[in-house]
Amino acid sequence: MLKVAVLGVGGYGGSEILRILHGHKDVSITHFGANTQAGVNLKQSLGQFRDIYDNVMEKSDLSQIAKDNDCIIAATPHEFLARTLTKEIINDCVVIDLSADFRLKNPKKYEEYYHFTHPSPDLLQISAYGLCELNKESIKNSNLIANPGCYPTCSTFSVLPLLMAGVIDNSSIIIDAKSGVSGAGRNTKLDSSFCEVHENIKAYGLLNHRHIAEIEQNLCSFSNNINEINITFTPHLIPMNRGILITAYANLSSKYSYITQADIDSIYEEFCADKYFIRYLRDSAPETRWVRGSNFVDISARLDARNKRVIMMGAIDNLVKGASGAAIQNLNIRFGFREQQSLDEIAIFP
Amino acid sequence: MLKVAVLGVGGYGGSEILRILHGHKDVSITHFGANTQAGVNLKQSLGQFRDIYDNVMEKSDLSQIAKDNDCIIAATPHEFLARTLTKEIINDCVVIDLSADFRLKNPKKYEEYYHFTHPSPDLLQISAYGLCELNKESIKNSNLIANPGCYPTCSTFSVLPLLMAGVIDNSSIIIDAKSGVSGAGRNTKLDSSFCEVHENIKAYGLLNHRHIAEIEQNLCSFSNNINEINITFTPHLIPMNRGILITAYANLSSKYSYITQADIDSIYEEFCADKYFIRYLRDSAPETRWVRGSNFVDISARLDARNKRVIMMGAIDNLVKGASGAAIQNLNIRFGFREQQSLDEIAIFP
Amino acid sequence: MLKVAVLGVGGYGGSEILRILHGHKDVSITHFGANTQAGVNLKQSLGQFRDIYDNVMEKSDLSQIAKDNDCIIAATPHEFLARTLTKEIINDCVVIDLSADFRLKNPKKYEEYYHFTHPSPDLLQISAYGLCELNKESIKNSNLIANPGCYPTCSTFSVLPLLMAGVIDNSSIIIDAKSGVSGAGRNTKLDSSFCEVHENIKAYGLLNHRHIAEIEQNLCSFSNNINEINITFTPHLIPMNRGILITAYANLSSKYSYITQADIDSIYEEFCADKYFIRYLRDSAPETRWVRGSNFVDISARLDARNKRVIMMGAIDNLVKGASGAAIQNLNIRFGFREQQSLDEIAIFP
Amino acid sequence: MLKVAVLGVGGYGGSEILRILHGHKDVSITHFGANTQAGVNLKQSLGQFRDIYDNVMEKSDLSQIAKDNDCIIAATPHEFLARTLTKEIINDCVVIDLSADFRLKNPKKYEEYYHFTHPSPDLLQISAYGLCELNKESIKNSNLIANPGCYPTCSTFSVLPLLMAGVIDNSSIIIDAKSGVSGAGRNTKLDSSFCEVHENIKAYGLLNHRHIAEIEQNLCSFSNNINEINITFTPHLIPMNRGILITAYANLSSKYSYITQADIDSIYEEFCADKYFIRYLRDSAPETRWVRGSNFVDISARLDARNKRVIMMGAIDNLVKGASGAAIQNLNIRFGFREQQSLDEIAIFP
Repeated sequence: MLKVAVLGVGGYGGSEILRILHGHKDVSITHFGANTQAGVNLKQSLGQFRDIYDNVMEKSDLSQIAKDNDCIIAATPHEFLARTLTKEIINDCVVIDLSADFRLKNPKKYEEYYHFTHPSPDLLQISAYGLCELNKESIKNSNLIANPGCYPTCSTFSVLPLLMAGVIDNSSIIIDAKSGVSGAGRNTKLDSSFCEVHENIKAYGLLNHRHIAEIEQNLCSFSNNINEINITFTPHLIPMNRGILITAYANLSSKYSYITQADIDSIYEEFCADKYFIRYLRDSAPETRWVRGSNFVDISARLDARNKRVIMMGAIDNLVKGASGAAIQNLNIRFGFREQQSLDEIAIFP
Repeated sequence: MLKVAVLGVGGYGGSEILRILHGHKDVSITHFGANTQAGVNLKQSLGQFRDIYDNVMEKSDLSQIAKDNDCIIAATPHEFLARTLTKEIINDCVVIDLSADFRLKNPKKYEEYYHFTHPSPDLLQISAYGLCELNKESIKNSNLIANPGCYPTCSTFSVLPLLMAGVIDNSSIIIDAKSGVSGAGRNTKLDSSFCEVHENIKAYGLLNHRHIAEIEQNLCSFSNNINEINITFTPHLIPMNRGILITAYANLSSKYSYITQADIDSIYEEFCADKYFIRYLRDSAPETRWVRGSNFVDISARLDARNKRVIMMGAIDNLVKGASGAAIQNLNIRFGFREQQSLDEIAIFP
Repeated sequence: MLKVAVLGVGGYGGSEILRILHGHKDVSITHFGANTQAGVNLKQSLGQFRDIYDNVMEKSDLSQIAKDNDCIIAATPHEFLARTLTKEIINDCVVIDLSADFRLKNPKKYEEYYHFTHPSPDLLQISAYGLCELNKESIKNSNLIANPGCYPTCSTFSVLPLLMAGVIDNSSIIIDAKSGVSGAGRNTKLDSSFCEVHENIKAYGLLNHRHIAEIEQNLCSFSNNINEINITFTPHLIPMNRGILITAYANLSSKYSYITQADIDSIYEEFCADKYFIRYLRDSAPETRWVRGSNFVDISARLDARNKRVIMMGAIDNLVKGASGAAIQNLNIRFGFREQQSLDEIAIFP
Repeated sequence: MLKVAVLGVGGYGGSEILRILHGHKDVSITHFGANTQAGVNLKQSLGQFRDIYDNVMEKSDLSQIAKDNDCIIAATPHEFLARTLTKEIINDCVVIDLSADFRLKNPKKYEEYYHFTHPSPDLLQISAYGLCELNKESIKNSNLIANPGCYPTCSTFSVLPLLMAGVIDNSSIIIDAKSGVSGAGRNTKLDSSFCEVHENIKAYGLLNHRHIAEIEQNLCSFSNNINEINITFTPHLIPMNRGILITAYANLSSKYSYITQADIDSIYEEFCADKYFIRYLRDSAPETRWVRGSNFVDISARLDARNKRVIMMGAIDNLVKGASGAAIQNLNIRFGFREQQSLDEIAIFP
């Protein structure tokens, strides 16, 4: 049995790790880490675990935990691991980090988008960006896996196929994103309070959302031959618990201005052919309900021939494929388990 | 592999059967029955099954299906199976019926509460009432299992322990129930339309809800020595997809008028001791979020000493323990599988 | 123009006062009081007031405000006014208090239910309990009006008619209440956070909710001849912004055990005859959507003849008739305006 | 008193007309028209009107009603008025039509977007398009007023100021729209059923939504000098009752590629200066909660200098400014009442 310590179990990302790992036959959870909730029995904070994990949450001594375990999954706030992680720790055990601390290769981007100077820029170079379907070899060979952000996961899979194929003009990409409230984490901000969110929709993080840097990095790095891509990215807060929907727009590049819908479908279907968790919808648009609670990404694209433009759409569960499901998928890849293990649940609807 | 045909897969109950059975290693689904949606590919109606069940829904020839399969799980409307089921069919295969057609032993109650004359009253005598935790021997030995209703399941487990112990006056039982909208099924009634339900709460089915007969039958039959119990039962519609919460009230019987909270806790804990899916909450009140998507029943009780009364509460997911999860549990019991098989998932929160 | 100062305008109760008073032709708002939000422009916190009230919220000097105004409406937290209000202030101006600080006549109840020793018990004796329809003369003649709580308002109107008529046994009253989230105020508690509330229902404040004392006081004081009534009261939190629904149960008193539904209807209709804002529904059950945003109370009652019991139901908008609407109604009564002024809006549906 | 007949009062648009007109001191409602609900008392279908409008809904004889009234407001389905309206009727009385039947000047667009051949194309030429703030003179002088669609209203006000100023490239306009469910009307479609919508978001009407033609017509006709504009328009369904949010994107035209945010703010502020119901938000993004139940349009724009692009946003209540409020505003303009009469309510939050 693989010994796994989970940090931040009192939050939505950490508790989702526990939920998913419950069905994993090769993993044993040895440590339930928390900060403000340390000392509290898990079931007092998260009643779904009653009679399943009868554990008290506790503060974590990272070095010791690394020695005692095979893997640490950290659902901790941004900057925490950046400040505490060392090479010794990742020599002792594999670390899968759900925060953004090791996702961006260019340390300057942390100053620009996260407003702190990255304290361990050398670790940025050795971390593997954990976008499972596109970076498997790196993931297999790294002890520090930076689990991708929710918006970047959904955006990248939606836009990348046409970008790689050269079909779209990379200076014209606009991503209009919509997310449920759990994306903001388990917190007590007024902006997350029920009556402020319910029966409301708003844009937020206009022009400066942190995930812009990560999406741009992905579109460049996975399309191989593009040095710089600037996107317009507008996230919106939707009155629902879970789910992200991406609606992206781009102009057709001049040499593909007469592409057909069938050609577009083929490009996506080829892209998805070897990717179990990515489903291309030829005949309908993605909806978050069809992926809720599951690790699937549903994508689709529609040619707007009149405007020589394409609409690219994607849907994920932000807490599963957008966070904790991807982390388990990374664990499976890194440790040689079946990639879908404990992740092959069907979405829960209604 | 057990061959199972599922009828009514286009609805919430039937699709939930498919979702749960997906993880069942001993079951193979051979038939996807539907009525109005026959001819439609499952994924067109229920996108969560894309790439998982690539099946077309079809009309069902009950006799033939019975011959070809080990088990039929029917998530069909009330009256359908009552009119079509025969002894031959249940000689050929096990039938688990999610409708109310074979739940009530007294055929007169169908006239009173369901407004039709039961066409096969003899089958009422051979059906096993599928309340798993309380009727296991009957379930093991019957080919016709009447899966319990959602309100009766939650109400029975909440109230029965104190009733069996003689603690409460059985003429004083009031059950105030609250249910999410999926309990009404996948339909196109105006009353289920989003804007009619959202930001609203109402009582419905006042004094004549069909589940009254079933709850009263349960409280009598499982408490052994009581011939007749009349309850007041008021269900309410809550703007959420899933979940039932029961808040029940009863006066202490005179000989227990000085019972303590600790005594009450002990009675419930003893009741729950050998029942994996029933959790007694000594320290908090049940909430539907902690059982959402799972087969658990959370119950609790609070002594109102000032009024010599007790408040009994219970929470279930109406589509799982209140319908499809219970059906799989019945299947497991009937066919000798591990009772929790494919049912040990943790609730999905948030 | 009546000069009115409103305290606590940054919260749900206070902002609702502003919304409703906007249509009041005889009132001018002179002061926008706030505590933690002092210094903030109203529109920054509550965008609905943009271009309507271009005011900065400010700290309030109670004595000075009292001198400068005809009326203070205080939507401040419990204990605030109890600690700061003086006879001088209410000599200078009328105070309408939305908190519970002056509702209970027996100061001991504050210790029992609010856990503080009331610092000005003498004011409890001169305050008028502002349940408009039942206490008009006192309201007209007092400078300190204690605006009723939301649950007590809805519960009292639902239960009182049958209690006054002697139809129900006053030892048997059970009130099962359901409320939207705005009842908890505009706060940052985790329990009010979107993902904790959405798709969930739970009971809370079991056996010790603060409104129990107020409901019991009302049922005694307005029924004239009853010295003590103990009720069982269970509130529940519903995933909606606004609305309270009460479902109350009581046994028929022995001399009315053969009362008819028509008799019950008559009692309620007589009760409602001279009360514009209270509507008796002979033919249906109350729903919160039909009163949302309005000052109406919808009530109904159903005879459960089989159990010699009656079900009494009521619906209000907790922020209007349950708080701010009632406060304006009190203002209208106290200052001799038309009672419905700026309160005759129809509920907003959907 | 102006005599007004309202058709389609059993739906969301029609009932909203009744709600708003309740406060209109110069209007008397004389006829409550309905089709499928004819014969039903209004309060049975829409409980908010209990004790306010005690009227039975009835079938409408259009010619007779026109003779008996000063104005007909029709909240009837598309194609109904197109097939029944005659010049005689609009000679007899003013008709304000909430459907799309007389909005588009080019009859061919009805074939393309509404899939029917317009039966009375001559009326298209004499109807006034009722976008109050931009077409007041026409409205004053026409007896047939085509009330604008919800998406077109919000889109036009959001995009037009920069388009008229020449700031944006009119071949680059993309409108990503989000709407609450009431926009689909009061119907019994499965797609509007609670459990299908709640906890879900999806795009719909991709590339062929009917409002595309109307938005394009508006952007051309009100910008004066542009003959043809093609937009990409993607609406999404959001789990809320009311509200539309528009997020529009366009590239800066070459001669304005160095425009500043301050310049953009000035353009909008000038546009809004004489328009009471349109509020420009210099400092924040629009949210539907701040306009809920009100006739306001909140708009804002943000320069994306890095991409030489601008993000334009707008929020309305789809049932008020997007339908019934605009109809009353048109009535006020047409009959010379104060334009804001019975429309100056503040948004209801939460």
